[in-house]
Amino acid sequence: MSFPYLARFQDAVAELKREGRYRVFADLLRRKGAFPTATYYGGDKPRDITIWCSNDYLGMGQHPKVLAAMHEALDTCGAGAGGTRNISGTTHYHIQLEQELADLHGKEAALTFTSGYVSNDATLSTLSKLLPNAVLISDQLNHNSMIEGIRHGGAEKKIFRHNDVEHLEEILKSIAPERPKVIAFEGVYSMDGDFGPTEKICDLADKYGGFTYIDEVHAVGMYGPRGAGIAARDGTMDRIDIVEGTLAKAYGVQGGYITASAAIIDAIRSYAPGFIFSTSLAPVLCAGAIASIRHLKESNAEREKQQAAAGRLKAMLKGAGLPVIDTPSHIVPVMVGDPVCCKAVSDTLMRDYGIYVQPINYPTVPRGKERLRFTPGPLHTPAMMDTLVGALSDLWKHHELPQQSVA
Amino acid sequence: MSFPYLARFQDAVAELKREGRYRVFADLLRRKGAFPTATYYGGDKPRDITIWCSNDYLGMGQHPKVLAAMHEALDTCGAGAGGTRNISGTTHYHIQLEQELADLHGKEAALTFTSGYVSNDATLSTLSKLLPNAVLISDQLNHNSMIEGIRHGGAEKKIFRHNDVEHLEEILKSIAPERPKVIAFEGVYSMDGDFGPTEKICDLADKYGGFTYIDEVHAVGMYGPRGAGIAARDGTMDRIDIVEGTLAKAYGVQGGYITASAAIIDAIRSYAPGFIFSTSLAPVLCAGAIASIRHLKESNAEREKQQAAAGRLKAMLKGAGLPVIDTPSHIVPVMVGDPVCCKAVSDTLMRDYGIYVQPINYPTVPRGKERLRFTPGPLHTPAMMDTLVGALSDLWKHHELPQQSVA
Ligand SMILES: Cc1ncc(COP(=O)(O)O)c(C=O)c1O
Ligand SMILES: Cc1ncc(COP(=O)(O)O)c(C=O)c1O
Repeated sequence: MSFPYLARFQDAVAELKREGRYRVFADLLRRKGAFPTATYYGGDKPRDITIWCSNDYLGMGQHPKVLAAMHEALDTCGAGAGGTRNISGTTHYHIQLEQELADLHGKEAALTFTSGYVSNDATLSTLSKLLPNAVLISDQLNHNSMIEGIRHGGAEKKIFRHNDVEHLEEILKSIAPERPKVIAFEGVYSMDGDFGPTEKICDLADKYGGFTYIDEVHAVGMYGPRGAGIAARDGTMDRIDIVEGTLAKAYGVQGGYITASAAIIDAIRSYAPGFIFSTSLAPVLCAGAIASIRHLKESNAEREKQQAAAGRLKAMLKGAGLPVIDTPSHIVPVMVGDPVCCKAVSDTLMRDYGIYVQPINYPTVPRGKERLRFTPGPLHTPAMMDTLVGALSDLWKHHELPQQSVA
Repeated sequence: MSFPYLARFQDAVAELKREGRYRVFADLLRRKGAFPTATYYGGDKPRDITIWCSNDYLGMGQHPKVLAAMHEALDTCGAGAGGTRNISGTTHYHIQLEQELADLHGKEAALTFTSGYVSNDATLSTLSKLLPNAVLISDQLNHNSMIEGIRHGGAEKKIFRHNDVEHLEEILKSIAPERPKVIAFEGVYSMDGDFGPTEKICDLADKYGGFTYIDEVHAVGMYGPRGAGIAARDGTMDRIDIVEGTLAKAYGVQGGYITASAAIIDAIRSYAPGFIFSTSLAPVLCAGAIASIRHLKESNAEREKQQAAAGRLKAMLKGAGLPVIDTPSHIVPVMVGDPVCCKAVSDTLMRDYGIYVQPINYPTVPRGKERLRFTPGPLHTPAMMDTLVGALSDLWKHHELPQQSVA
């Protein structure tokens, strides 16, 4: 008579298996100093593999300065923060990290969260609530954390076609001038590797009284002279109201943040439940992030080597006739277009070649757009690239996959 | 003509100031080995204070085993995980931590999240979506992260009066037997310090085909022979479908988790956006949590000293005629009942006595229930307690606050 809970959970998972998009997590152990090499625990016995899909784009997760700062923080103040920001969980590390971030983006203030996901979710939902009768205008390819934040806020939502500023203008024009209009978009779209048109979006925001929100999660540390992202590179950072980022990708640690004017930060800090009611970031993570941000403010070497590696890999893939998307960014997607095949190629790469690249299937990308997504870094050697391209060529033949390159 | 964004953010903050509930974060630096002493950076110059409101209840954030494990993890594999769980972010530390957690709660499997907040939000919202036509039945005093998770799931919601199992039964009775019914409650309610009636709730779940979800955030590490929480203490853990907890309070680190049957964990793992689309917990945090959980599975000393400290402080406060709530748990709330006064007492304690306890105002507690919430730990000495009770007695006279103890 009562509801069959167990059967329902089993069915939900079986559905994913039927569709070929059930996810098996690869059990890995990175080794400090040896990245992008790692130990893989998934087979009969542990063995060495090369990671090709990490978002620790620059290898900062093993940088000596970052690790030294983290060791020191552990020795100074211990492990966790011990409370929410308001209840004993604000440490000197949080304050310093927020100053560092505000400086990075040329803003008055910053606020840290436990992740980039939470920073988007908490900030966008709170904006929707603070701004009466607001419309949230969102790029069609925005990340799930922005989509959920907008949905959770409950304000009216409109979606513009990806990077289509004419469509965005149509939407802005259609909304009464006195209504708040938040335009949410990204600096780098991480699955297709293209950039958001920051200047045109800022122009439209000026023209129609919009409020701009950029997710620079895949761009911070990576673009702009000090690593402040795409808006910094484009010279539009001071025209953007809220810049959001993560500490978990190019900075190599964990945590998320926003930077903005002091008034905005004070309002979000005071009203966002996802910020207020959660233990603050562990000081050891703050310390690592501070060191990483400071280093990448000064040093261009990692960015340059990363761009060189990405350029080289794209050229090699093209040369081999593999369907790489010719992105302008550091991300190198190779299209497969089928979830089962995508997983099979990935599995064989791991098993037979010691190459780890995760299949990217729905819901991370739309159905039919399944792909392998490579993130070459400054530490991937030309020899590693040779092995990779050779392996892919073999498998493309074996699976009779389409070969031409995609513009 | 366009919307005045800046003025709106300023107004929102001004409103909090008018109500006396604008929050100023205390800038602290805990010192390893000296906790609960810390350095306070809020005044003219840094000075030493005693923390009385940390949720690092047992001081595990500075435990040598925890810190050694974290140092070792940094040396072994570096700082961050570098990806979501599915895309290169599952490390051997995650797998081990999840095994440790499943064992702690006697369940088949476990899943880690970046925080306890995210674990509640992601799991409850996903449960609502996976279970067709579900009703989520929630204790009136449940934590904001559960409330938001239930709201985000969008299923029908019913609230029962705090710990009122008769009211809960009325609600269960009123729902069609074949509908899924999730009962969400807590092991320890952290602001009032009372326990959830786990046995009676499990009985009702059995009787009416309910699915049970317990938040043991303030209980894990603290209760039960191995620190598995209130359900473990009550002998009901195997009757509860999902046990949720944090790594950031008694375990002294950061992160959140759920444990349950393998089928449930697999479904949540596969469907929860807040889990799927966020970089996984940094391995260094996993390592610290593993060490902390293992230690508290074996050692009762910290729990016993903590309970002794809480008992002693409650008796001293009662003896001094201060309005302490006589909680059965480790939490020691002293009622003030006014936000402005609550903040004034807290400010004076910090300024004149070097005692740090945060005022707890709306929205953390209902208006009119403002309080100071003390969390004495194994490291608070009798001398610190004398100073505290003396200071409170002075201030209670000075502010002419009500003196009798509250049942
Ligand atoms: C565009 C974008 N925004 C936000 C996030 C979330 O950041 P975090 O991993 O720090 O939670 C991600 C990925 O994880 C992302 O790709
Ligand atoms: C009952 C309860 N559940 C969940 C949380 C969230 O846990 P975390 O601090 O790990 O985000 C808290 C407090 O922070 C809490 O008090």
